[in-house]
Amino acid sequence: MKKYIEENRDRFLDELFSLLRIPSVSSLEKHGPDMRKCAARLAELLKEAGADTADVYPTKGHPVVFGQKILDPSYSTVLVYGHYDVQPVDPLELWKSDPFEPEIRDGAIYARGANDDKGQLFMHLKAFEYMLREGKLRHNVKFIFEGEEEIGSPSLAQWALEHRDLLASDIILVSDTTMISEQVPSINCGMRGLSYIEVKVTGPDKDLHSGHYGGAVANPINVLCDMVSSLIDKDGRINIPGFYDDVVELSDEDRAKLARAPFDLEEYKKFLDIKEVKGEKGYTTLERTGIRPCLDVNGIWGGYTGEGAKTVLPSEAYAKISMRLVPNQDSARITELVTDHILSIAPDYVKVEVRHYHGGNGFLIPISSPAYQAASKAMGEVYGIEPVPSRGGGSIPILADLQRILGIDPLLMGFGLERDTIHSPNESYLLSQLFKGMESIALFYEYY
Amino acid sequence: MKKYIEENRDRFLDELFSLLRIPSVSSLEKHGPDMRKCAARLAELLKEAGADTADVYPTKGHPVVFGQKILDPSYSTVLVYGHYDVQPVDPLELWKSDPFEPEIRDGAIYARGANDDKGQLFMHLKAFEYMLREGKLRHNVKFIFEGEEEIGSPSLAQWALEHRDLLASDIILVSDTTMISEQVPSINCGMRGLSYIEVKVTGPDKDLHSGHYGGAVANPINVLCDMVSSLIDKDGRINIPGFYDDVVELSDEDRAKLARAPFDLEEYKKFLDIKEVKGEKGYTTLERTGIRPCLDVNGIWGGYTGEGAKTVLPSEAYAKISMRLVPNQDSARITELVTDHILSIAPDYVKVEVRHYHGGNGFLIPISSPAYQAASKAMGEVYGIEPVPSRGGGSIPILADLQRILGIDPLLMGFGLERDTIHSPNESYLLSQLFKGMESIALFYEYY
Repeated sequence: MKKYIEENRDRFLDELFSLLRIPSVSSLEKHGPDMRKCAARLAELLKEAGADTADVYPTKGHPVVFGQKILDPSYSTVLVYGHYDVQPVDPLELWKSDPFEPEIRDGAIYARGANDDKGQLFMHLKAFEYMLREGKLRHNVKFIFEGEEEIGSPSLAQWALEHRDLLASDIILVSDTTMISEQVPSINCGMRGLSYIEVKVTGPDKDLHSGHYGGAVANPINVLCDMVSSLIDKDGRINIPGFYDDVVELSDEDRAKLARAPFDLEEYKKFLDIKEVKGEKGYTTLERTGIRPCLDVNGIWGGYTGEGAKTVLPSEAYAKISMRLVPNQDSARITELVTDHILSIAPDYVKVEVRHYHGGNGFLIPISSPAYQAASKAMGEVYGIEPVPSRGGGSIPILADLQRILGIDPLLMGFGLERDTIHSPNESYLLSQLFKGMESIALFYEYY
Repeated sequence: MKKYIEENRDRFLDELFSLLRIPSVSSLEKHGPDMRKCAARLAELLKEAGADTADVYPTKGHPVVFGQKILDPSYSTVLVYGHYDVQPVDPLELWKSDPFEPEIRDGAIYARGANDDKGQLFMHLKAFEYMLREGKLRHNVKFIFEGEEEIGSPSLAQWALEHRDLLASDIILVSDTTMISEQVPSINCGMRGLSYIEVKVTGPDKDLHSGHYGGAVANPINVLCDMVSSLIDKDGRINIPGFYDDVVELSDEDRAKLARAPFDLEEYKKFLDIKEVKGEKGYTTLERTGIRPCLDVNGIWGGYTGEGAKTVLPSEAYAKISMRLVPNQDSARITELVTDHILSIAPDYVKVEVRHYHGGNGFLIPISSPAYQAASKAMGEVYGIEPVPSRGGGSIPILADLQRILGIDPLLMGFGLERDTIHSPNESYLLSQLFKGMESIALFYEYY
């Protein structure tokens, strides 16, 4: 496919950039029109690439794009999943270029969504286009692109239930994850699940002067800090009764297998500019993100946060808290456990409310499956080295749902790199990865 | 003075409102022009009230207004202190009327600064005007109004040092505090000091995807919560070595005297809409705000604080933390202690920086002094009941400085009420308190 890429490089980038220029931030209401625009543009690109049909389906939330090419009912069918929504861009001031005006610097595209997931889903459009135009395609291909992955896919499971026949396939193919490094390709064979809550602590019913009341009235920020602090113990374990009940401990053998993945702790620390890593006692860094659950505060706020000093004892304090779960932990059960626990430790001098955001279960993919083997062969050929099976720390909760609803396994061929800093300012995607991804996917169709 | 107030009521309100309409928020740079406008307006009002001179003095920060009426060098001299700057107004959406367009509702003026301190300093202008016009004044009167009280008076101490002769007086008279209730007038005979810092915790040098890194990299918000939580122990004591070294424990007798101040805990909790109070073990609520130090987080922020969910492991987290100090605790020493402690407990997987805001020492005023006695008699006459000596929990750090620089005592005749919610949305000041305050101050001049 190398030659096809060379010949069509400018058109490819124009097409991808047309997607990146649409600020399809799913979590912010004002971007509703952008979501619809992005969905429409994707359907257009699907048809241009050769799909028989490509339609935009409204949902209660942002629309779903579905398109397909049915070559021969006897062929096996690949269902490509991707998402066209992106994360918010704040803090905007840290971006070196406009997040919605893609720019190529040092061989990488800089834009929100350059990697996650517009860049990665685009590889599938072009690999499909190539295989089809060259007459090499021996599969039916279906595409499902949603606009709500970054907010937990609240509509897609229902939509998939209602369109089970339309989606019927043999494998779900996804590029929405990372490889270990440019030199060490890897294939994700498991991902963590997610439980996400927001905690609101209310003290007095109004902001107070901290001089007049300080020392006598509970400060909701201090209380929130106490509560958050109590959630992780000194060994880095999550201090919520029952939290680890369903966590499967890996055998020493399995841990040894995972430890074969190349990993340089010093480089990792240098990349993050940290002196030390921190996590659950008794586990390595790769295990901490791969096979162990964790709890993070994703946002906290309360009181006066402007310039200078204000002596306020605030009425309210908030924290957004998420837990990454491992396969066999049930997201709904964990959310309930955590909520119950937080309410149970709430002291009687404040009011505490817990709000639930999206969640989802983790999952595992068998390495022995034909799809994994085909992907491994394809990537091995493109990168010149056999990919390492890895366990991803992130979550694509909808994949566990699709797996359950459609009865088929997902396969995660991700081409992102750590350096892409997805979800952060200056998200990027290397052109070399974009093009190698296309080649790998095209080869996957040949070997699957 | 009752009659004079009745005759001039509309003019008084017009004049006060002209001050309240100027958004003199000292902590926000954009209000620089408003600060100068407010200072000029005050000088104008001073002259109209009868001052011989009234001038605006530039400082490195916001200007100082100084005016005086020297009737006879043999008279004793009263120095009136007040401040024309106000606190920020956020959260603006909780205000029922424009904070800078005063409105009278149910017998109270609603506006930022209605009480703190424009309303209260205005009483002094009018009591002075009345005494002078009626030929009753037997004191020289000096006025010093600063524009930086809410940001810790960074310029006034230096200015006072440079203008010691101009400020020479026998007593500093201040209305910038509260009474216990409308029915129970009180005079503040002590205030707490203040130490105010900002803590910044930096983890990785960029925001990270919490799925890819969560569990393996320290989250600066979690670390900040751990650190904040460790600063107060389970008995409500501040957990910083040396913090209580200079705190003077009151004798049982003194505690019994303070306990005579009427206080209804149930009413207090009802007013704040809290089920329970919280504070240092072994002390009552009045003691906790009057004679004991405390530590409050005044603001906290980090990560994603917008709508919806974002799975970010942020790079930075911040907290503004202030400590109220009691007399004999030195603000500079405490700030140093706290800073050293916070840096010493900072774990090596994050970077921690501490920034210092303003601070100041607490102080005590002898009840036996002639000025206290005159104020007590004046307020007793106006309210029909002898005022209770009380200890204020707030801080006016500059007063301890002026006391030291000028060698004279401050006297705090405050007419604010708890219901005024200064520093919060819907700050107000009862017209009855405004006018009773004027009467009390006029009588003070007669008895002092």
